[in-house]
Amino acid sequence: MEEAKTIYIAGLGLIGASLALGIKRDHPDYTILGYNRSDKSREVALERGIVDRATADFKEFAPLADVIILAVPIKQTIDFLAILAEMDLKDGVIITDAGSTKGEIVAAAEKYLTGRSVQFVGSHPMAGSHKSGAIAADVNLFENAYYIFTPTSLTKPKTLEVLKDLLSGLHARFVEIDAAEHDRVTSQISHFPHVLAASLMEQAGDYAKEHEMTNHFAAGGFRDMTRIAESEPGMWSSILLTNKEAVIGRIEDFKARLDHVTQLISQNDEDGIWNFFNRGRLTRKAMEIHKRGGVDSSYDLFVDIPDEEDVILHILELLRGTSLVNIHINEENREDINGILQISFKNEKDLNHAAKVITENTTYQVTID
Amino acid sequence: MEEAKTIYIAGLGLIGASLALGIKRDHPDYTILGYNRSDKSREVALERGIVDRATADFKEFAPLADVIILAVPIKQTIDFLAILAEMDLKDGVIITDAGSTKGEIVAAAEKYLTGRSVQFVGSHPMAGSHKSGAIAADVNLFENAYYIFTPTSLTKPKTLEVLKDLLSGLHARFVEIDAAEHDRVTSQISHFPHVLAASLMEQAGDYAKEHEMTNHFAAGGFRDMTRIAESEPGMWSSILLTNKEAVIGRIEDFKARLDHVTQLISQNDEDGIWNFFNRGRLTRKAMEIHKRGGVDSSYDLFVDIPDEEDVILHILELLRGTSLVNIHINEENREDINGILQISFKNEKDLNHAAKVITENTTYQVTID
Repeated sequence: MEEAKTIYIAGLGLIGASLALGIKRDHPDYTILGYNRSDKSREVALERGIVDRATADFKEFAPLADVIILAVPIKQTIDFLAILAEMDLKDGVIITDAGSTKGEIVAAAEKYLTGRSVQFVGSHPMAGSHKSGAIAADVNLFENAYYIFTPTSLTKPKTLEVLKDLLSGLHARFVEIDAAEHDRVTSQISHFPHVLAASLMEQAGDYAKEHEMTNHFAAGGFRDMTRIAESEPGMWSSILLTNKEAVIGRIEDFKARLDHVTQLISQNDEDGIWNFFNRGRLTRKAMEIHKRGGVDSSYDLFVDIPDEEDVILHILELLRGTSLVNIHINEENREDINGILQISFKNEKDLNHAAKVITENTTYQVTID
Repeated sequence: MEEAKTIYIAGLGLIGASLALGIKRDHPDYTILGYNRSDKSREVALERGIVDRATADFKEFAPLADVIILAVPIKQTIDFLAILAEMDLKDGVIITDAGSTKGEIVAAAEKYLTGRSVQFVGSHPMAGSHKSGAIAADVNLFENAYYIFTPTSLTKPKTLEVLKDLLSGLHARFVEIDAAEHDRVTSQISHFPHVLAASLMEQAGDYAKEHEMTNHFAAGGFRDMTRIAESEPGMWSSILLTNKEAVIGRIEDFKARLDHVTQLISQNDEDGIWNFFNRGRLTRKAMEIHKRGGVDSSYDLFVDIPDEEDVILHILELLRGTSLVNIHINEENREDINGILQISFKNEKDLNHAAKVITENTTYQVTID
């Protein structure tokens, strides 16, 4: 019989605490030890049974661990790797992290831990929400999200085997990718977009000082473009500063595209501009942006509903007892006269059940995403 | 007693047809004549009683009108102004439009109509949806939206008086602004953001050809940033080409901001980057982006709901008979453990009723936006 492992999670915020819950789901016999600097999350984590023991001293539990997960900010992760390198740890201990960028953490691990009897792989569980702290810990946070591994020279085949088994309760999708490639891809679809949103917000804020109606006329499209400008500055500074080359690369590439648009406008090139917008539209339709990872871990169904009273109520009555993740009337991207009611479920079973029940009990068209 | 007017609406798409419905709401005795090039929208408009008569020949009804509304694309609006200038129209006829940019239309009006016995004011009803055609016409499309007037040398005080009375059934918010200022402000909060979204989408699409995981890792933030990249290319080419200077100005200003970010990153300026993101966050929070115009014409209430089954069903049962515009669980920008259920209503009366009913019958915290 497999021996119950001891897992040490440093950082009991949303990510660390949710990882703990996921581990406990499939391995209730494992011991989970936690570190957190602040009292509050330590107390909550103990009260909620998220961890079995908690410390304010990082070094205290490290020697007891079979697996160490560093779920703290990037810089602190690197500091902790240096600390672990100087300690007597269990032979063959597996160390991993949860950082949003991987290159610098992986480099630090290889620098500090090479020659030691440890295994290391970079991790990036791509999920989150705007909630924070152990109080927001959710065993389903990573359900269907990408959990990315970035193997290193300190990664053995069994490293990933052990971790995938340990984290099976997350119900995540495991993916392996090179650390540098991870950082490049995330620079394009996450880091650089955050730079864009914050820059646009600042540009509009400055413009509003001279042009009063700026604040008043801004509406849906502007809201979408600037939503992620409300992200947490500390986390995003760390991300930009640990992924410099890729982000600067995206900035330079983007500026060239803006220059091209300026040229099309100056030259009155109507076809050129039409093609520019049309390409954007077609590319987006084709991309099928991943709805099942990160904060959008859900199974969606779409119902064509007429603009009558109590339609949503009727549908929810049919779905009584099914736990839905979200519900929304989509008016975008549809050229029908009806609104499209989008209902998101936690898993495929609930989704299929809902589709069946609505189809059997109404005349509304149902589409599964 | 005021004489019933004859209103001529050229263009029976979503905008023109919705304007007609709004006019008829408060002036059921007025005669509404319509022009549309394509058969389909003409037929639908007649069937639905949106117009009393319809023509495929623009010139046919123009001489009969007390008010002419040009609700066709920008270029066609300008062409029609030239045509009207050569016709015998009713003395003192009021002509207006519905274009997304105002400068070129206003200049054309002044060029063609000066010296004629007509009144002209630019209009921009800032609403819409992704639906199209007379079939999607909605009497409430402009409810609480900004309806912008851009006065010209052909505008008399009574021009706006007459139009505001004519359009009272739209339940819109009338605003007057200089045409050039209108175009500047919209370049910042609408036109340039569309350039950004389409450019980002194209950039990511190109990147995905070399970096396969691009499509897979893109999630919520990327979806928000590229949603408006699915806008209609024809409309957006017209907009960019009739607002060149302002859009190019925003592009150049934005490139300088990107350069600054590049510099901060290259110089490892952590405080600088932190401030950059923090300013973006604070500016957005302060902006209170107008939720009550355009496609977001609604009154919102927020309910703190626990993560239990059937909560939404229970709330909708309490709101039986109230017509809600939308419903959504917000997970963003809240650091509570509960989800925030956002319900949007058509008007203040329904909003207040709902707030009262939920407060009296549940323990959930209710906030009005």
